[in-house]
Amino acid sequence: MNNNENINMQGAVCPLPIAQNRQIIMGHGSGGKLSQDLINYLFIPPLDNPTLRAGNDAGVVSIKPGTQIAISTDSHVVWPLFFPGGDIGRLAICGTVNDIAMMGASPKYLTAGFILEEGLEMILLQRVVESMKTAAEEAGVQIIAGDTKVVQKGKADLLYINTSGVGVLPPGLSINGANARTGDLVILSGPIGDHGIAVLSARGDLGFEADVTSDIAPLNHLVSSMLNPNEVDPHSLPESNQCPIHVLRDPTRGGLATSLNEIAQQSQVSILIDESKIPVRPAVEAACEMLGFDPLYIANEGKLIAIVKREQAERILSLMQAAPYGKDSVIIGEVRPDPKGRVLMKTLIGSTRVVEILSGELLPRIC
Amino acid sequence: MNNNENINMQGAVCPLPIAQNRQIIMGHGSGGKLSQDLINYLFIPPLDNPTLRAGNDAGVVSIKPGTQIAISTDSHVVWPLFFPGGDIGRLAICGTVNDIAMMGASPKYLTAGFILEEGLEMILLQRVVESMKTAAEEAGVQIIAGDTKVVQKGKADLLYINTSGVGVLPPGLSINGANARTGDLVILSGPIGDHGIAVLSARGDLGFEADVTSDIAPLNHLVSSMLNPNEVDPHSLPESNQCPIHVLRDPTRGGLATSLNEIAQQSQVSILIDESKIPVRPAVEAACEMLGFDPLYIANEGKLIAIVKREQAERILSLMQAAPYGKDSVIIGEVRPDPKGRVLMKTLIGSTRVVEILSGELLPRIC
Repeated sequence: MNNNENINMQGAVCPLPIAQNRQIIMGHGSGGKLSQDLINYLFIPPLDNPTLRAGNDAGVVSIKPGTQIAISTDSHVVWPLFFPGGDIGRLAICGTVNDIAMMGASPKYLTAGFILEEGLEMILLQRVVESMKTAAEEAGVQIIAGDTKVVQKGKADLLYINTSGVGVLPPGLSINGANARTGDLVILSGPIGDHGIAVLSARGDLGFEADVTSDIAPLNHLVSSMLNPNEVDPHSLPESNQCPIHVLRDPTRGGLATSLNEIAQQSQVSILIDESKIPVRPAVEAACEMLGFDPLYIANEGKLIAIVKREQAERILSLMQAAPYGKDSVIIGEVRPDPKGRVLMKTLIGSTRVVEILSGELLPRIC
Repeated sequence: MNNNENINMQGAVCPLPIAQNRQIIMGHGSGGKLSQDLINYLFIPPLDNPTLRAGNDAGVVSIKPGTQIAISTDSHVVWPLFFPGGDIGRLAICGTVNDIAMMGASPKYLTAGFILEEGLEMILLQRVVESMKTAAEEAGVQIIAGDTKVVQKGKADLLYINTSGVGVLPPGLSINGANARTGDLVILSGPIGDHGIAVLSARGDLGFEADVTSDIAPLNHLVSSMLNPNEVDPHSLPESNQCPIHVLRDPTRGGLATSLNEIAQQSQVSILIDESKIPVRPAVEAACEMLGFDPLYIANEGKLIAIVKREQAERILSLMQAAPYGKDSVIIGEVRPDPKGRVLMKTLIGSTRVVEILSGELLPRIC
């Protein structure tokens, strides 16, 4: 049943610059350098438009004068389907909710597209859908459209879920990766690496059971409380153009290091972080040490980075610390003019080193 | 690497009523009765809301007073990836564009989520993305957000694509499956069964090469020309509440028979069609006869059903026939009060028979 040899590939030239990239490898899904290459060389050239090229967590578009919406999509292929602290269903809801929230938009409506493998136990699917329900209720979003496809046994891994979503943006608000400015401070909403290590632990890949649960959480209420501290109408933001929150991003695949590099590149600034300020749970630290991983590159699913105006940083930090998913928020660094597009870290021993974007593959199928 | 045994299934009861539905089978993806059961028993109860329950091609929601949008999603798992008349890329664009257009909305923005199998040839992926570009340009939509996941060799079938999309609805317009009224006429935009037979032919499953190409096409311009014959502003529809177009639906999985049944159920009316009026190409007819298929159940990807006010039917038919993807449009039947929820067909030999919804599996992975 392979009938793809009728595609004439004669004369076709691999669009990616590197010879070993003639075929898709696991690293193309890592969220790091290989993913960026795939996007920049293969997807962007044919599909190019300013919104896609902006490279944010969600695309922001105007659907009529004065009405802006943020749209995002994520396919979820995490393995195993259930792990400490979450499952593919909760992940599918929170992943898309968070991408929309990172533009400062209020997520409202989600779609869910299921690819099911023949033989999947119905009660397992039901368990996943119940988990989606719980997460959607927590986030305050509705799933208003769905799709189900079934593929033969061996053509999927039980269950893949795509969620896409739409959120509404307060008029005039512009929060995105290109807005970091010299002097801004960098806030992180809590300890890093929990999600990646929890999934790894569920796979049995650690060789021991780490006492770590995934941090999967919908962050839209945290973002709302940062934007609207006085619980005013979330759709009227006075002085929105002077919003002191310049950038929001959730450091998922590729971890904190990769997200900060993306922002530094988009904003053409340098970001300096202080290793001593970055919270990492002891169990995550121990697992990383044993496996030779750096927590800076491990995926999170319930954390955000906020890059904010220095003068407002303490106020915003307090608002974050008052929210359930932001109580461990800390200021971890600042934005500097140079070297542009790079992330530097003051290490524990006092030296300063470059923090690169994730290269190659780290943890496949983490989300 | 199977760690799902930690899910406690004790006491869990299969949500579906039929014993053989304890596991997902291919028929759950057919678009027919089994798909309906899965939706009605497993997905709707936990995720219930009026928009999802409406069961239309896209969900219509208000994002602020006076601004309605239609949102839809489709995952595409067609095999093979390339077939006469199209490929998974063109299908992914047109599938979502058409679902949005069937609500009378103008599709504007799409997202694309890729699940790639390790080892996929980069130039094959590039070919698919180029095809998406061409289809998106034809439809006049932009892809503004994307996502790429990679799974290990053997955990997908080269490439699955989810597209989701957003369209804007003219104020006050309500076209949906529950609007068919006694006396309405049923228009079909052209011959049925081309897509399903083209894909089957590409698989080599026919045992011969059928001279059939898929009808995959974006139907949004056809719908616009039906709604706005004088090229007026598509966002101002005078007398929109009296729009003579009551229902639009594209008969994809499950074919014409299944789509008409869905409409009859949603509107609680009966639909009577005339077999002699339903166009089927000779090559499709021949392939169906040989395989024991009924063209009424074969998928289409570039056709629509319009259920319209009788007095306006000839005018709307002319508008459809003047459009490139509607030139073979014909009136195939009418809406009657009884038997409610059923589709009847006057056969070629003059008798009348019930046309059931597709039951079981017909053609897996056709879209």
